[in-house]
Amino acid sequence: MRLRKIKNAAEKLLDFSDLVVLNPQNYYGRWNEIFNNNNQICLEIGMGKGKFIKTNSENNQELNYIGLEKSDSIILKAARDIKKLNLKNLKLLNYNASGLRGIFSDNSISKIFLNFSDPWPKLRHEKRRLTSADFLNIYKSILTEKGIIELKTDNRNLFEYSLIQLNKAKFNFLDINLNLHEFDNDIITTEYEDKFKILNKIIYYVKVEK
Amino acid sequence: MRLRKIKNAAEKLLDFSDLVVLNPQNYYGRWNEIFNNNNQICLEIGMGKGKFIKTNSENNQELNYIGLEKSDSIILKAARDIKKLNLKNLKLLNYNASGLRGIFSDNSISKIFLNFSDPWPKLRHEKRRLTSADFLNIYKSILTEKGIIELKTDNRNLFEYSLIQLNKAKFNFLDINLNLHEFDNDIITTEYEDKFKILNKIIYYVKVEK
Repeated sequence: MRLRKIKNAAEKLLDFSDLVVLNPQNYYGRWNEIFNNNNQICLEIGMGKGKFIKTNSENNQELNYIGLEKSDSIILKAARDIKKLNLKNLKLLNYNASGLRGIFSDNSISKIFLNFSDPWPKLRHEKRRLTSADFLNIYKSILTEKGIIELKTDNRNLFEYSLIQLNKAKFNFLDINLNLHEFDNDIITTEYEDKFKILNKIIYYVKVEK
Repeated sequence: MRLRKIKNAAEKLLDFSDLVVLNPQNYYGRWNEIFNNNNQICLEIGMGKGKFIKTNSENNQELNYIGLEKSDSIILKAARDIKKLNLKNLKLLNYNASGLRGIFSDNSISKIFLNFSDPWPKLRHEKRRLTSADFLNIYKSILTEKGIIELKTDNRNLFEYSLIQLNKAKFNFLDINLNLHEFDNDIITTEYEDKFKILNKIIYYVKVEK
């Protein structure tokens, strides 16, 4: 997600403390208190400007959504856009995925979305890919029994790599689509995805279960 | 593999008994006697006209190859083409894959090739796909420890299906390529594959380990 850095973004996020949870580690094991219910929690890692998770939370009021984004400038932009919708079932976190175990207890997340993650193509950056073995281990801990990961990407090499890693980590493959937008459909898209659709780029999709 | 039926093909195969093993079940547990060595055995299921397995056996004298083809007309055509090469490390079988356990003992095959298998797109024909659960169980029995399956296809839906089945059957994914011929390379091709390359069709590839 390319975006010009916003000056003092971290400070400006303080104005959105209803939507952006500033000390997420304080809610370890008790996210139900934030949402005021015991509904299932879905997590998007790398939510970017937030179109995907915003639309999901609007469409599925019976589920809770948490969007993770490590860039403070990007999450600020998303927060400015989303705040006015006053969605009770959506929270945003300015956080890095490597710290997920510090904010979510084991078996607490029902679904994880990975949309158009950075492919980190160089082998020496493999550990940064959001489907590397270490990250998949983290997801496995925080996912509930039979918890789901859904991954979409336009990057062929990242997708090939992710399938191999997901298999190695013993996730069960439920669905694979090697051309997600071949036919018109109602899939909820990200900002990236809309651009790729116009360019007729292939989007790859996989859904796995813990 | 489309081919006009050859009249009395089964009978005509008798002339090629050096190359085409007519009673393969007689060699259950002792294929090394046919090859006169204890080298590893690689099996292509659905070898069609045989270009792929012929080229492999020419290039790798230290390995034994067996080509399976259920159509007698097609295997006759392959036999006529291959016989003159007098390859000591190649045998052909006019046999159906569902009977593999009757001709190969457990842990006796090092590698299985599935090239451009019939996709059987209708759900009611799922069991005929060469990567259905029943077939994968057969392969698992006859493959050696860490035995390999390599699959190539131009059929996207068959490939998506096969990845899910291979994962479900607990094979370990070693390599995936979602555009095998993107770059020029030395891959040994089938007759089909050569046509698809010219048409710039995407060829999918996966390599798994037992």
